[in-house]
Formats: sequence, C-alpha cells, structure tokens
Amino acid sequence: MSSAVHPRFIALSGGVGGAKLAHGLALTLAADELMIVVNTGDDFQHLGLTICPDLDSVSYALAGLSDPVRGWGRAHESFVMLETLRSLGGPDWFQLGDRDLALHLERRRLLDEGLSLSAVTSRLSEKLGIGHAIVPMSDDPVRTILDTPGGTLDFQSYFVAQRCEPVIKAVRFAGAESARLAPALIDALASPGLEAIILCPSNPILSLDPILAVPGLRQALRDSRVPVIGISPLIGGQAIKGPTAKIMRELGLAANATGCAGHYADFLDGYVIDEADAALEDQVARIVPHVTVAQTLMRSDMDRAALAREAIAFARRAAPVGGLS
Amino acid sequence: MSSAVHPRFIALSGGVGGAKLAHGLALTLAADELMIVVNTGDDFQHLGLTICPDLDSVSYALAGLSDPVRGWGRAHESFVMLETLRSLGGPDWFQLGDRDLALHLERRRLLDEGLSLSAVTSRLSEKLGIGHAIVPMSDDPVRTILDTPGGTLDFQSYFVAQRCEPVIKAVRFAGAESARLAPALIDALASPGLEAIILCPSNPILSLDPILAVPGLRQALRDSRVPVIGISPLIGGQAIKGPTAKIMRELGLAANATGCAGHYADFLDGYVIDEADAALEDQVARIVPHVTVAQTLMRSDMDRAALAREAIAFARRAAPVGGLS
Repeated sequence: MSSAVHPRFIALSGGVGGAKLAHGLALTLAADELMIVVNTGDDFQHLGLTICPDLDSVSYALAGLSDPVRGWGRAHESFVMLETLRSLGGPDWFQLGDRDLALHLERRRLLDEGLSLSAVTSRLSEKLGIGHAIVPMSDDPVRTILDTPGGTLDFQSYFVAQRCEPVIKAVRFAGAESARLAPALIDALASPGLEAIILCPSNPILSLDPILAVPGLRQALRDSRVPVIGISPLIGGQAIKGPTAKIMRELGLAANATGCAGHYADFLDGYVIDEADAALEDQVARIVPHVTVAQTLMRSDMDRAALAREAIAFARRAAPVGGLS
Repeated sequence: MSSAVHPRFIALSGGVGGAKLAHGLALTLAADELMIVVNTGDDFQHLGLTICPDLDSVSYALAGLSDPVRGWGRAHESFVMLETLRSLGGPDWFQLGDRDLALHLERRRLLDEGLSLSAVTSRLSEKLGIGHAIVPMSDDPVRTILDTPGGTLDFQSYFVAQRCEPVIKAVRFAGAESARLAPALIDALASPGLEAIILCPSNPILSLDPILAVPGLRQALRDSRVPVIGISPLIGGQAIKGPTAKIMRELGLAANATGCAGHYADFLDGYVIDEADAALEDQVARIVPHVTVAQTLMRSDMDRAALAREAIAFARRAAPVGGLS
C-alpha cells in the first residue's frame, strides 16, 4: 500500500463530532501533513460484514459524502436492501444504506483477501478520493463493552439498539491488552517532523478511551516531546450530539470541559474549551498547563476549518517544556 | 425447522429453465405434495456472501418475484449498491441488486449462526411466503469446476465473467465425493407416498449433473420403484436460454433431445420432448422406455402449469415394471 506517512499532525478521532474537526484539519493541512487515527472500538460484525462506524464517518466527512441532516451515513442514500431485509425478518436495527453497504462489502472482500484493516482503509480512502491518511488505531480487533445494571452490552447494542438508555457502570475494551498500534501510527509517532497531537472533540469515554487503551499510546503521549492538546466535546455541560454528558455523570466524572480535561490530565499540554465555558478557564488551567477559549461548535465547513486553524496555532503555543517550540 | 416432508413428487431443478417448471409444479400441487431439490454447484462466495443462484431463481419464481424480462434476479430491482461498489473499484461483474442483496446478507447471517443451508433455505422460503419445500441437493459445498483450453474455471467465472465462451473439455464437481444428500431429500426418497421423480428441463451438464454427483442419488434413481421422468431442455436442438447445446457439442454429446435423454439412460423411465422434436420420438424411445411429446416452451404461468400437469400425468403412465402404477 502507501509508503510510510510522516505527518506534522496526528489527530485522534471518534465518529461524528471528531470527524468534523478531522475534516477541518484536512481542509487546513496538506495531505502529507496530517494523519487521522480513528477509534475502532465501535466496530462490529453484522450480516457477515465488518462495520467500522467511526472510520466510515471520518471517511465520508473527508470525502464530502456525509449526510448533513441525519448526522451519520451517506448523503442521498437509499434503503432498498434494508427494507427488503426487514420483509425477510432479518435484523433491521442497524441502518444500512445501499450506498454505505458497498463500502462494507468491499471492505469484507479486501479483509478476506488478507489485507490488514489499515491497508483496507487506505485502499478505500484512495477510492473515495481522500488524500489524507486515515488510520485505524489498531489492525487488531478491540471491542468496547459496557457493563450496565441489566448486564454486559456490546457497543452497538447499547448505542443503537438500546439508544444509550442503560446506565453505564463500567467500560471495557475487549482485546485491547493484546492489540498493537497500527504500524503507520507507530511510524508517525516517531516521525522527526511531528509538531503536535490533537485529540478531536470526541466522546472521551466511548471514542477516545478505546484509542488510548491500545498499549503504548497513552505512555507515548505522556512522553511526547511535541504538544498534545485536546478540544472539549462538551459545551455548557452538554454534548452537541450523543451521550457524552450522561455517561460522564454515570461514571462519577464532572460532565463539563473540566471533567473532560481531567480525564487526560496525565498527558495533556493544552485544552481548548468553548466560549460558553469561559468561566471554567481557571479551573481547567489547574489541571492542564495551557488553556484557550474558542468557538468549538462546528455548524459549517468554515467553522470546521476555523477550529482546526485555532487548534494548530494553540498547539504551537502549548509546546511542553523541553519540546519543540 | 419444519418437520420431515413426505412429498408425492420430487423435482430436480437448476436455475432459470428448471425454475419455470418447478413453479408450474407448485401451481399444480399442494405444498406438502412437492419437494424441489435444487442444484448448488453454482453457489459461490462473493464479497463475503454465499450466493446460491439456482436456489434463489427457484425461490423467486415460486414467490412470484422473478424479473420476467431479465430472466434472473428480482423484479423492480435497483442497483444502487452495485453502482457504488463500482465507484469504489470493487468487483462489479456479478449483478447484485439491492433487493437480492438482502437475501444474501440474511443467508450469511443465518449460516453464521450455524444453520445448515437446508435450514436457511427453509427459513428464507417461509419469509418469502413459499409453502412448497425447496431443498438444496446437499448441505455440504459442491462446486462445479470447468476444464477449458485456457485452464480451470469456477462456474461463475465461466458463466458470468466469461459469458460461457471458453470451450469445455471436462466438468468436475469439487467436494461432491464427500458431500451428503440433504437430509430432507433422503427422507423424501424413502417416503412411502412418493409417486414420481421429475427432472426439470435444466442444463444436463451444469445443472442436473451436479445434483446427480452427490453420492447415492444416481443409484437411488436407478433403483427407484417410482417412475423417474425428464423433460428435454432443448427444443429443435437449441436451448431457450443458456449454453446447453454448445456445451453438449463440446463434450461430444448429441445436442438435442436424444442426447439429453441418453445422458440419463441408466435411470430414466420416461422423457418428455417438445412438439418441435416429434421426429426424434422413435430415436428417444430406443433409449428410454416411455416418451411423450408436449409443448415444453413455457412463455407464461399457464404454460408452466400445463407442462407440470402433463409431466405428472406422463409420470403415472411411465411407472417402471414392478413399481407403482
């Protein structure tokens, strides 16, 4: 596949919210300057397919194919297969559009040929016309598992089938202990030209923690000579979309920018909080060396690019002592 | 799944042509009177799916879902997934409609749950509203392999990708030697109420031979106390659709009703030839004990039902000596 990428920036991203900033970074940086590392903890097997929701959200965002209204899947989508599947009594709880399905079937075919998930993702990105590197956190399966009062749930059962309603008591990442970071990510972390690592405004518990659970990454961020910054996914204590605030409360964490920053206090050099949370700036500054206030709500592609530029500029200011400056 | 079926008639069928008579038989016989045993030699793995073209042709025919113009697949079909797959650079040589795809995905899911192909087929038939029993010849994989001057081809590469153009030197059925007849077929063959076994007008080499290659079936037909009859797939030395005549010539067989009858001379009690081939009646009668002339071209559902009634009546007349009468 493609040769080693030596990006200036590595972004860690989950699905929808993270994908927006990943898209903004791709609008701001040249293809060889950015690597987007994506959570695969949500991946699951369904109808014989390997579905990678976060990889696909990021890919569709960068390819300009995302549905702007639904917030997931492809624009101009049809659901003929799904309607027929329903009539056959098959499982219709997971929304599979006809266009989206082509990606899953082609991924299945390429995985069955023996390609790694990294190689498959690279191939699919190329076919979607994406120049920037999108890399799964690991080529090994890691699966997010949720302990709830009603029992253990896999991610999609919790997220889609049960609409995030069960209370979360604990989150585990099955397979993480033996998973290896994607080879391209290992290369990128060691790249001499690396300038910063950016945590996208994704759900800390469900989207970023699985990435950080792959052995070696969290320590690499702690030891990083380049700045590691994050952007709060919560604005005024609420997520734009999804259950972030609910889950943080259930786990006994502060459901605001401070709680999110605190979740990564061991390695963060800087944190971006929203203008609506300016009052939290001093609180966050007691946890993270550098804090900045910005408009983090991304309503448009302009907003995405603007926040990306802001994050890049902030990362340069937040360089750790002894690191790049 | 369903309990054992004790049909009065067993029909052996391939895809399109055989499916028409199978449909006619289903229009003529009650659900518990007919078992349709279908060739699975054409089955193949594609995009992680197990595609069973002949089972699906028979199922769609009985469910009234066949496309009457194309001659394969479902009516009112859309191809959104396939068009998207093409744009991703995926393999688009096999036509997969969005509706058809639902069946393949649900089959994949049920097979992955550990169900046999018989059980999956039974479940899918039920969901399609089909009352008559459709049974794969075997739950074990048997794959039709073609030796050609250019090398060995699997069935779909020959049939779809190369449009039946290569000359066939030999046909083999990989896996047949260790395959077991479907349990429901074994039960049906031993059923005391069985009245006849009917070979549908399918390609003898590519559609019926693979069924007959499953150990035990050909001998069971030779030993059968009930009449075994066939219907010629060739009219005036030509197939309605498909490469039957071409293949028979390539294999050194007479490409007409006589050649087809001769292919089963070891067990046939009767053979139905078309009105256009009435001149061959005496020739066929030297090979098969009973011969009848009928209109075998099935342009409409009426034609299908009429030929089915004809075949049933003929089978009763063709009862072997010592058999039922």
